[in-house]
Amino acid sequence: MTVKDIPIFLRACKREPTEYTPVWLMRQAGRFLAEYRSLRRQYPFLILCKTPELATKVTLLPIERLGVDAAIIFADILLPLEPMGISLEFTKGEGPVIHNPPRSRAEVERLRGIEAEEDLPFVMEAIKAVCRELKGRIPLIGFSGAPFTLASYLIEGGGTKDFVRTKSLMLQDPSCWHILMEKLSAAVISYLNAQVRAGAVVVQLFDSWAGILSPRDYEEFVLPHSRRIFHELSSKVPAIHFATGAAGILEQMKTAGGDVIGIDWRIDLDAAWRRLGYDVGIQGNLDPAALLGPPERIESRVAEILHRAEGRPGHIFNLGHGVLPQTPEENVITMVEAVHRLSKDK
Amino acid sequence: MTVKDIPIFLRACKREPTEYTPVWLMRQAGRFLAEYRSLRRQYPFLILCKTPELATKVTLLPIERLGVDAAIIFADILLPLEPMGISLEFTKGEGPVIHNPPRSRAEVERLRGIEAEEDLPFVMEAIKAVCRELKGRIPLIGFSGAPFTLASYLIEGGGTKDFVRTKSLMLQDPSCWHILMEKLSAAVISYLNAQVRAGAVVVQLFDSWAGILSPRDYEEFVLPHSRRIFHELSSKVPAIHFATGAAGILEQMKTAGGDVIGIDWRIDLDAAWRRLGYDVGIQGNLDPAALLGPPERIESRVAEILHRAEGRPGHIFNLGHGVLPQTPEENVITMVEAVHRLSKDK
Repeated sequence: MTVKDIPIFLRACKREPTEYTPVWLMRQAGRFLAEYRSLRRQYPFLILCKTPELATKVTLLPIERLGVDAAIIFADILLPLEPMGISLEFTKGEGPVIHNPPRSRAEVERLRGIEAEEDLPFVMEAIKAVCRELKGRIPLIGFSGAPFTLASYLIEGGGTKDFVRTKSLMLQDPSCWHILMEKLSAAVISYLNAQVRAGAVVVQLFDSWAGILSPRDYEEFVLPHSRRIFHELSSKVPAIHFATGAAGILEQMKTAGGDVIGIDWRIDLDAAWRRLGYDVGIQGNLDPAALLGPPERIESRVAEILHRAEGRPGHIFNLGHGVLPQTPEENVITMVEAVHRLSKDK
Repeated sequence: MTVKDIPIFLRACKREPTEYTPVWLMRQAGRFLAEYRSLRRQYPFLILCKTPELATKVTLLPIERLGVDAAIIFADILLPLEPMGISLEFTKGEGPVIHNPPRSRAEVERLRGIEAEEDLPFVMEAIKAVCRELKGRIPLIGFSGAPFTLASYLIEGGGTKDFVRTKSLMLQDPSCWHILMEKLSAAVISYLNAQVRAGAVVVQLFDSWAGILSPRDYEEFVLPHSRRIFHELSSKVPAIHFATGAAGILEQMKTAGGDVIGIDWRIDLDAAWRRLGYDVGIQGNLDPAALLGPPERIESRVAEILHRAEGRPGHIFNLGHGVLPQTPEENVITMVEAVHRLSKDK
């Protein structure tokens, strides 16, 4: 295998030079695709996740259509909570609802450990099927929610605006907090390593809500657990460490780990990379809302971000968060095409 | 009048040395106070705001009890929208609802200009009454929402998680966006200057949601308007410029204006002040959730923030956002007392 045979997305993860900047989108297999919406009218969300044939189909939906440089397995970050003993439901409009959020030390201690291959076999089967279909053309990304983000859904019983219950547990009963984070970390490690064994060649840790914490709280209550995950991850694959609103905790996120740090649009990419240092890659960082704007503006925003990356190896283009459901498909295609074309000129 | 007669809060706004670090809390006259909750059982929220005797009473509620160094007039950032032609309601649990959000250029153009003294006389009467009661013991802060934050409520029709309608207008019809921002800016200028004429000796511009924007969007769509406000503000009083989640746009916020920049807890205070430069003051930045924790932890967090401020003149202690309704009153008192005691040692 020559260097040219290694997919450019994988080379970018290792900060090796590439002919153009690779690009994929968080939620690229999601609600903005007409075919996905049509599948969702036939099947509830969790059925899509848990039926390998359907999850495979959804994972592959955007690949040809959008021209992205990586696939990401279709799943939900909350799936590993079910085998831990959590009753999970996705309600229309309201998002995830957890019916038995652990609110005491006894309830936290009752959470079960998982063996991902046995407890989430449908994810591994879908990964194997996707890899068979992709035939190595583009890499498949596996992923998991990070312990903090999982803990916040778990404790709040679903989404939240202010994370008050989560922070209350953290501050009022730190030892219970750390027990919970250890249990979640063990589950995440099992889950990610199983995905790698099944065929994922990159993993992304979604700590989507870590940016809601002060740097100091992140350091005490989150960093040690995320760091353990990166240490115990299979060293065979590059890891992307992602959070939103994390402009105040970039240095701490890097300390926790990851070959590539994923950032959102709320900080300039050049400022973020300078602070992180050029010994890690960077992923981002177009505002998903920019894809609602006119095509000329999409192209100019893509150009600005590429300009800030200065053609430096190790930049993976992405949105700063998931693509919005109301995004026109043609705007996504415009973006992907612009990333490829404009980064070739560099 | 000797220097000692000038309230320390005002001296801190001008970055003059003070005997201890002044402190107040956003929403210090709010729902965490039992007396406020009892008033709210008698009167709807907007009646409290619009009845000068009641607004005066609420403004003064926390002063003796908490020992804070400034009062802030009790009002709501959305009040100036009503005389502009907006129908505003506060629903139980859901927060503000705007019944006629402008969604077209014609609707934006129909928004009326305001003369704050005539259109919001109840606010000015309350300010005068509070000043009579305070007798100069501590300063009274006037405030307004910033144009971007007002625009977001206006366009979304209330609170929002993703600001999609707001960003869509911004990106798809920039000239309509700027018309809206100009109208809102004119209203804010009239409103703040009227508050100063009525007796407010400091003003705070709340751009609470500006941190949701990329630095680039902030610069194009927000900065020119906020800058105009600071230029046209009465030069007699210091101005505080506040936003949350703004770790990525601090430099731009400073460029827009303000004698003091208010930050939230999602960035370390020393890192933020270094980036802003020491030619502006800084306000912040305890996580409101920290006030739910045990008193020892509150005191240690206060100590950490004071340590990061290094006893440098120009630090005003505050939370990073409004005090949470579920906060025990005694924890707020613990915080205020700790700020005063620990900063005297510096």
